[in-house]
Amino acid sequence: MAYRHVALIGMGLIASSISHAMRRARLDARITAHARSEASRRTATALGLAEMFPTAAEAVAGADLVILCTPIGAMERVAAEIAPHLAPGATLTDVGSVKRAVIDAVTPHLPEGVRFIPGHPLAGTEHSGPASGFAALFDNRWCLLTPPPDAEPAALAELTAFWQALGARVDLMEPDHHDLVLAVTSHVPHLIAYTMVGVADDLRRVTSSEVINYSAAGFRDFTRIAASDPTMWRDVFMSNKDATLDILGRFTEELFALQRAIRLGDGPHLHDYFTRTRAIRRGIIEAGQDTPSPDFGRTPARLAD
Amino acid sequence: MAYRHVALIGMGLIASSISHAMRRARLDARITAHARSEASRRTATALGLAEMFPTAAEAVAGADLVILCTPIGAMERVAAEIAPHLAPGATLTDVGSVKRAVIDAVTPHLPEGVRFIPGHPLAGTEHSGPASGFAALFDNRWCLLTPPPDAEPAALAELTAFWQALGARVDLMEPDHHDLVLAVTSHVPHLIAYTMVGVADDLRRVTSSEVINYSAAGFRDFTRIAASDPTMWRDVFMSNKDATLDILGRFTEELFALQRAIRLGDGPHLHDYFTRTRAIRRGIIEAGQDTPSPDFGRTPARLAD
Repeated sequence: MAYRHVALIGMGLIASSISHAMRRARLDARITAHARSEASRRTATALGLAEMFPTAAEAVAGADLVILCTPIGAMERVAAEIAPHLAPGATLTDVGSVKRAVIDAVTPHLPEGVRFIPGHPLAGTEHSGPASGFAALFDNRWCLLTPPPDAEPAALAELTAFWQALGARVDLMEPDHHDLVLAVTSHVPHLIAYTMVGVADDLRRVTSSEVINYSAAGFRDFTRIAASDPTMWRDVFMSNKDATLDILGRFTEELFALQRAIRLGDGPHLHDYFTRTRAIRRGIIEAGQDTPSPDFGRTPARLAD
Repeated sequence: MAYRHVALIGMGLIASSISHAMRRARLDARITAHARSEASRRTATALGLAEMFPTAAEAVAGADLVILCTPIGAMERVAAEIAPHLAPGATLTDVGSVKRAVIDAVTPHLPEGVRFIPGHPLAGTEHSGPASGFAALFDNRWCLLTPPPDAEPAALAELTAFWQALGARVDLMEPDHHDLVLAVTSHVPHLIAYTMVGVADDLRRVTSSEVINYSAAGFRDFTRIAASDPTMWRDVFMSNKDATLDILGRFTEELFALQRAIRLGDGPHLHDYFTRTRAIRRGIIEAGQDTPSPDFGRTPARLAD
């Protein structure tokens, strides 16, 4: 049975895209939502994204699906606030990039009869806020759900069908394994990109305009990643500390080995390493997660005007 | 005065794109070229890219512009081979990603009366080979020239006009500074991307299919960079060792500071750092080196079919 009333708590890129995708899929559900800032509520109302409420408690009243779309650091506070107002039998989920920390923060506040099925749609852009959403964001992307072992099959099937209607493919995963996989595919890559951009910004011997003008040769892709929302990413690293530090340790170990090969002039080692990494790229294209068309910075902004 | 006969040594992404862009610009010049492999010569001939020759010496005979488009590691050998065959008054240039090492490799072989003006077009894709070129590759991209202090102004003006006709913007730079700037904007970012992809490939606890399927959240952009030509990149690191190790040192220093902030749970430090890096991204968009349109993996391959 499909949801009749969906409540979105937080109104950024993900929540606004859920609203767009729900309407594209012609889901027959009321959409209510809460955003902390009045400006966001006004924008969301103007865009017709949801009935907006100044408190999360008001937004969730009567909803049979509640989706926490705030930064991870706000989820405990929100869970405590909405708990007394959740409808019996409602499903509660979230879209946080870390799952163990969200489970630990939310579970203690769960009232009897509410089914909590944590989730994480692996989709995003470098933009944020209620105006940044669009209906196609989840198309062909994965949404990972990390249900508790005793999750009701019917509730899980309902949430799965919801994400599929939004365009996503759904998979189940154990929360700690999710956090490790995401440390590899997302969290550490973001930290590295932020670091590289920070180094470039800081270097007195190379000017900012040199970095900016001559970014087409690789650096540009890092800046796109490093332009993501700072609050969201602070919370990711604060709440997935162990897996991030674990993978970072592996990364620096490998980096030092390559650095040593450069210092020693070990060409065969470098060539072998660079050849091996090509295979993963092919796999990603075959899995439909990117295209083989060459990327050369897409249409330059000036020409696109 | 425009060139009447351009010789391309090596026939990969850059050389084939030069040929396409020359014809798009309707430059009235004969194009000859050399590629080592017979397969490449056959492909280039079939695509009408140039008159192909089995030796570099034959390809450069009579040319007034010779462009070395081989990996950097091959340039000394090629320079020695073509030197006796270069026409008096010809301009010799290259497209290598490192400039000091190319100058050191080529200069000793230069015959009297040949003007050597090293160059580097900052453009590329993750593809390689004679079939990968296209006319728009250099549009709105920078080509950095590193002329010697005694370069003839007329020869420099002619080469500048050539690159501009191909769509590029031209700037002059001192070779060592070029190598430092590129270490920041290209070489170290590539090494880091290769490393991160290598770590993911190596990690027993996370399967390849997990890495591949769940790559949309950041990792995907790294794999695109890490799919670049292994020989080219081996040569870059072998020949820009000092600047690469210098910037790598700065990178690991910064990374350790962020790692420490994560370990200590220092949220404000992380938030400040992630906010600062956003400004560089804005600069790159304003400089026309990327677009502000959101990147969410472009059209998934399956839907693009």
